[in-house]
Amino acid sequence: MKIVIAPDSFKESLTALEVAQSIEGGFRRIFPDAQYIKVPMADGGEGSVQSLIDATKGELLEVEVTAPLGNKVIGFLGVSGDKQTAFIEMAAASGLHLVPFEQRNPLKTTSFGTGELIKKALDLGVNKILLGIGGSATNDGGVGMLQALGASFKNATGEEIGFGGEQLQQISRISLENLDPRLQSVEFEVACDVNNPLCGERGASAVFGPQKGATPEMVQTLDKALAHFAEIALAQQNIAIAERAGAGAAGGMGGGLLLLPNVQLKAGVQIIIEATRLAEHIRDADLVITGEGRMDAQSIAGKTPVGVAKTAKQFNVPVIAIVGCLREDYNVVYQHGIDAVFPIIRQLNSLEETLKQGRENLESSAENVARLIKLKM
Amino acid sequence: MKIVIAPDSFKESLTALEVAQSIEGGFRRIFPDAQYIKVPMADGGEGSVQSLIDATKGELLEVEVTAPLGNKVIGFLGVSGDKQTAFIEMAAASGLHLVPFEQRNPLKTTSFGTGELIKKALDLGVNKILLGIGGSATNDGGVGMLQALGASFKNATGEEIGFGGEQLQQISRISLENLDPRLQSVEFEVACDVNNPLCGERGASAVFGPQKGATPEMVQTLDKALAHFAEIALAQQNIAIAERAGAGAAGGMGGGLLLLPNVQLKAGVQIIIEATRLAEHIRDADLVITGEGRMDAQSIAGKTPVGVAKTAKQFNVPVIAIVGCLREDYNVVYQHGIDAVFPIIRQLNSLEETLKQGRENLESSAENVARLIKLKM
Repeated sequence: MKIVIAPDSFKESLTALEVAQSIEGGFRRIFPDAQYIKVPMADGGEGSVQSLIDATKGELLEVEVTAPLGNKVIGFLGVSGDKQTAFIEMAAASGLHLVPFEQRNPLKTTSFGTGELIKKALDLGVNKILLGIGGSATNDGGVGMLQALGASFKNATGEEIGFGGEQLQQISRISLENLDPRLQSVEFEVACDVNNPLCGERGASAVFGPQKGATPEMVQTLDKALAHFAEIALAQQNIAIAERAGAGAAGGMGGGLLLLPNVQLKAGVQIIIEATRLAEHIRDADLVITGEGRMDAQSIAGKTPVGVAKTAKQFNVPVIAIVGCLREDYNVVYQHGIDAVFPIIRQLNSLEETLKQGRENLESSAENVARLIKLKM
Repeated sequence: MKIVIAPDSFKESLTALEVAQSIEGGFRRIFPDAQYIKVPMADGGEGSVQSLIDATKGELLEVEVTAPLGNKVIGFLGVSGDKQTAFIEMAAASGLHLVPFEQRNPLKTTSFGTGELIKKALDLGVNKILLGIGGSATNDGGVGMLQALGASFKNATGEEIGFGGEQLQQISRISLENLDPRLQSVEFEVACDVNNPLCGERGASAVFGPQKGATPEMVQTLDKALAHFAEIALAQQNIAIAERAGAGAAGGMGGGLLLLPNVQLKAGVQIIIEATRLAEHIRDADLVITGEGRMDAQSIAGKTPVGVAKTAKQFNVPVIAIVGCLREDYNVVYQHGIDAVFPIIRQLNSLEETLKQGRENLESSAENVARLIKLKM
């Protein structure tokens, strides 16, 4: 019996690899001789780099980068085991968690550090970059990131503009002449699960600005600044970013990335499924086990288990999900390839205590799923 | 496919019948055409009468009885659908919940009301009485119960002694002459899951007295009183109760009952299994589903699921338990016939909220167990 274990992480409790190991541990008590293939998954958000490193036997590299407010911090990126692919999470350099709560102000925050991570990936000689853009503190249209890679944004007096979303209003001249030339020969996939446009009611500033610390007045300023950036990009570089689905992701990062060559915005889980060669593993499997920290109606919108299930269903392989918790509205997942779902909580406890018991609860739950399967096999 | 659903109640949340109905509801979503036999179970404790009524399509009768402190309350008993068997819980007439906290005093409390329930059962013409003796407020050696049924306990001056454990010290003459003669022609089974003797360190007063309100001094008085009662019973009636395993149950009720003809002390779950004819239902079943509110290492000591599992294993039928919660030490149940266990909690919530969601959580859990079974059938 071949069993593919391809879960997401359980946020705040276990990495995807740890989840997979726990599920294997529970199953092995009942099926000690089955073949277990662990494929730690992710959806492009937090934990994606770790999962991709674990799935490809790659490694994590630490890099000093520029944090959103300009100070230096230690960020990270991952490289696949075969050294061909770099894995980057924008949050590792430009994340909201890097800005103290009382200093959160997207007028001032820059995505420059994410550009430095990309530059580091180019230094490593990879031919593919996978970038996840969730959790950012920025609303600068990715301009900081572009500056780090050699692009230039001059104001009316010919000076390079500074850091932060409000500076975009000053842009009078965009030059991509000195953009790092190595970007031309790299495949660049961006995990992007929102389809918001750059500006307006559904744009980056209005929808995501407030959670980054923007007041209603700031949202107006930022929205205008992004619109101005898009106008100049269209006029001077002939690149239309304003209306592109996903341009509004990560404070306009989705839009700014379109100024780079070879960039593709894709669904996060799809990128991970391809990077981990999940389909090859599943093709001849007897069972797929997936999971995530919380399953609910949102789980059908680009989350890991449903992505895994879709892949499994191409080969008619049964899919079981083992999850941290389960919301009332979860049962739409049955229509998306998940055959059965088991929550792991064994007793009421504090959240803290429950997170601590994650591994044990997972093993117990996996064991009982295996026991039930064994009854019938 | 024939599925027998034989759970205990989930205390404070659902009766055993409601548990069985919820499990059936979840299963029917996946196996609408299976044959479902619901056998609400119990272990002789609280909820046993209701389960036996539900299992035999019997009815509940209310009866005015004497509460532990002598006041009148409405108690109840059950009669099987075929009118042949009466179901009684001692707690319905002599339960601790019938005594306000500040008045709990086993020197004063009587089991007289339980005797009245037995008398009512005799009035109904049943040929069998099943009595559960958990949860009592009394420590009177069942003397009150015996008085209600016609036995006489006279003091040195020839007067009938009064209510309460301390009165037993006054007994100088026991007479069973006027005991209700109908007891001779009734089978009387008592659900008794402790093997404590009547007196001493492991006796009724020392072990169970304190939870009924006895101070250390009262425990001494009560222990001596029970010993005196046992001495007289042996001397005048030639009935040895002091050392009998189970005599110490329910404040010595286990001992007092031995003064009646045809009384058998048995394991609670065994009585229920026989009364519900569980084996006949399971004999040709494909699957047995049981359950209880909380499963832990104690579950192997006379609790419902393991009793049900033992019955199922006689016929090699697989057994799945669906439970309210699961303690770390639960896994000894695997060695007692339970093949797999699934806890129903789907998310962390208050206890109150979780109890309210019991039915929904149960149905969901049962559905997913059915889904997993269907994958393989």
